[in-house]
Amino acid sequence: MDELERSGRFDHLFSESARATGGWSAYETWRSATAANPDAVSLGVGFPFPDSFPNDELLSAAERAFDGDGDRTLQYGGGEDAALLPEFVAERARTHGIDCDTSQVELTDGATRAIDAVSHAFLDPDETLFTEAPTFPGTLAVFRNYGVEIVGCPLDRDGLDVDALERELRARRNDDRPLPTLFYTIPTFQNPTGTTLSLERRRRLLELAAEYDFVVLEDDAYGDLRYDGEDVPPLAALDEEGRVVHVGTVSKTVAPGVRIGWVIADEEIVAQVNRTNVGASNTLAQSAVGRYFADGYYEQNVRELREAYEKRRDRMLASLDEHLGSAARWVKPEGGFFVWVELSEEIDVDVDTDELLSRAAAEGVIYMPGPTFFPAADGEGGGERFLRLSFSHGSLEEIDRGVEALARTVRTVSSPS
Amino acid sequence: MDELERSGRFDHLFSESARATGGWSAYETWRSATAANPDAVSLGVGFPFPDSFPNDELLSAAERAFDGDGDRTLQYGGGEDAALLPEFVAERARTHGIDCDTSQVELTDGATRAIDAVSHAFLDPDETLFTEAPTFPGTLAVFRNYGVEIVGCPLDRDGLDVDALERELRARRNDDRPLPTLFYTIPTFQNPTGTTLSLERRRRLLELAAEYDFVVLEDDAYGDLRYDGEDVPPLAALDEEGRVVHVGTVSKTVAPGVRIGWVIADEEIVAQVNRTNVGASNTLAQSAVGRYFADGYYEQNVRELREAYEKRRDRMLASLDEHLGSAARWVKPEGGFFVWVELSEEIDVDVDTDELLSRAAAEGVIYMPGPTFFPAADGEGGGERFLRLSFSHGSLEEIDRGVEALARTVRTVSSPS
Repeated sequence: MDELERSGRFDHLFSESARATGGWSAYETWRSATAANPDAVSLGVGFPFPDSFPNDELLSAAERAFDGDGDRTLQYGGGEDAALLPEFVAERARTHGIDCDTSQVELTDGATRAIDAVSHAFLDPDETLFTEAPTFPGTLAVFRNYGVEIVGCPLDRDGLDVDALERELRARRNDDRPLPTLFYTIPTFQNPTGTTLSLERRRRLLELAAEYDFVVLEDDAYGDLRYDGEDVPPLAALDEEGRVVHVGTVSKTVAPGVRIGWVIADEEIVAQVNRTNVGASNTLAQSAVGRYFADGYYEQNVRELREAYEKRRDRMLASLDEHLGSAARWVKPEGGFFVWVELSEEIDVDVDTDELLSRAAAEGVIYMPGPTFFPAADGEGGGERFLRLSFSHGSLEEIDRGVEALARTVRTVSSPS
Repeated sequence: MDELERSGRFDHLFSESARATGGWSAYETWRSATAANPDAVSLGVGFPFPDSFPNDELLSAAERAFDGDGDRTLQYGGGEDAALLPEFVAERARTHGIDCDTSQVELTDGATRAIDAVSHAFLDPDETLFTEAPTFPGTLAVFRNYGVEIVGCPLDRDGLDVDALERELRARRNDDRPLPTLFYTIPTFQNPTGTTLSLERRRRLLELAAEYDFVVLEDDAYGDLRYDGEDVPPLAALDEEGRVVHVGTVSKTVAPGVRIGWVIADEEIVAQVNRTNVGASNTLAQSAVGRYFADGYYEQNVRELREAYEKRRDRMLASLDEHLGSAARWVKPEGGFFVWVELSEEIDVDVDTDELLSRAAAEGVIYMPGPTFFPAADGEGGGERFLRLSFSHGSLEEIDRGVEALARTVRTVSSPS
């Protein structure tokens, strides 16, 4: 943490948790590499591709919302089109096996705000939160604001290593060390690893939640974007205790800029989250997206997106095979946006993907370095031999070009064989 | 607090502050009266009137944003129209005398979210926060989520009683009791009292903030809606220490449903608020409102709104004079949405406006009872002889009808003279 930054005039007035958060920025390396090389292909961020957004359909939906209920569309509470949204959210959840109705739905301004409101409802300072490690840094930043201890649990090809989790829980109970209040997980098409937690492990995780009395915060941002393989039910669909707080979003399936996310949970939890999810609703966006859902555009758009993203994923995997075959390993993701790449042993053992990024950027590609995704505030918590590639944003040609640039970069640090 | 409500299955897992918040609902009396009497004139809530919303202009602005920069309008970060917004916010602030640029602006999803992010940046559990009493209950609900002691400071016709504030601060310093981290104030057209803090008192408040080392959180939701009298500079315009965190919104001047608010503050504070203001931006709304500003609609709309609200205010004051003249007192507000009405001594001394509401609703009017606006969690903290009337939402005819119904209600509890 930078001492200079901590000596501000108002530092003594900031909250403990805010003070602790101050020096930290997960994306710093990525940001400076991007700024220094604006022409490099961006395989770093998990943005949807530019022409994926249903501009015309949303505009027309907004127009119809104004036509139908213009006095209330922009009012506090919103009109009849915004009111459609909770039912569509519940209906989508039911198609994934989650038994719920609108009394269990709390709409939020995007998934990160949902996670923030859930954190506020559950986390006291100095409590303990468990999460997969690696995981989504945007969420780690949210948790950091609550002054909690963040404990990372390892993953393998099948997602969270539930045996390792159980060992950690048991050791903590035996040693009288704090047990978690929340377990944060992205079980399906995990960010950054792309892995999907197996059905058997999902059941084990829920058993552990009951045994050790924690709540499971399930982030399902990518659940609708499966390109092959079999659907695995969300944790919320397997939950018999009401211990799973399910968070969803249309950021990846409609557009990030509408800021529509939600919490689906036990009514008692939803009531509490409603209190921490402060402020009125973004009824302009809710009305447009509510009408958009009602007109059946969502299903159609998701079908088109699946095709488009599958092509991008396949191209990235083919390109990785062709150019980086023996220098790295990765697991084929069955959905989502990401490929998690591990540099192989033939790469110089001192190579750290955080440090390698500036060289990659100069070669023409930006990736997200592995350490970004680990809970340790100093970036020294793991992932040094890993990097995340996103196939969601670039064109097929850019994906090729980016992977080729990555291969060139990696060759510069390969040990002579 | 209801014991039943506190015995939920997850109660032991909720955060301390969330547990404390659980039983509380400021609007309960109002909500049940409204539900029981849907046909009563609503003079309770501070909603803009239905045809005040610039639906066509916003839709056309959104259309042009999509036309101009459609690939980025709904993307994370947004396109060129969303990027216009911070500059317009800074420019509006400068017209009110606040010396600032865009590096001091943090956009939020509405003013309540702004206040939430500021609270998260400053408040630790068990710290102390000062506020005007009465004040806006929506903000009190936000503060309650942070587990702080909320101390109310009285107001008179000229707004906050700064002498009383100074006495309280001095007594606390002498007795070694906690001093506030934040002082929350709505200095201009205060909600609910309609009062405006005088220039001299604004300067005194800032001197006290420096002497007792607290930050002033200035909520300026109504500052652009002055109907007569002289402009008084916002606290942020008088601040020489960077101690004022200024919060603004277009909820009252464009529409609530776009959820556009902001924080303007010292750069150090803005950097911290940026970390607690989590999640991406609602770029659909930001693009539409950015373009709307750029096209000059804002100024024009505010001029029209001032005329419309002035008429409503004047009608309400005239109607109060005519029907309630000797049974109540009020101060003419020079702007904003509200008239704060005190029942006079000729009303039965046991009358409580919380209890009176169901009778008023049956007569045909809903108001907001005075106790709603006081920090005490049990509603027993003051305001029992006060009620808030809003002239913002009803038509002129409804305002008359509502005030007449209120006068009838009050007559039923008048002592025989």
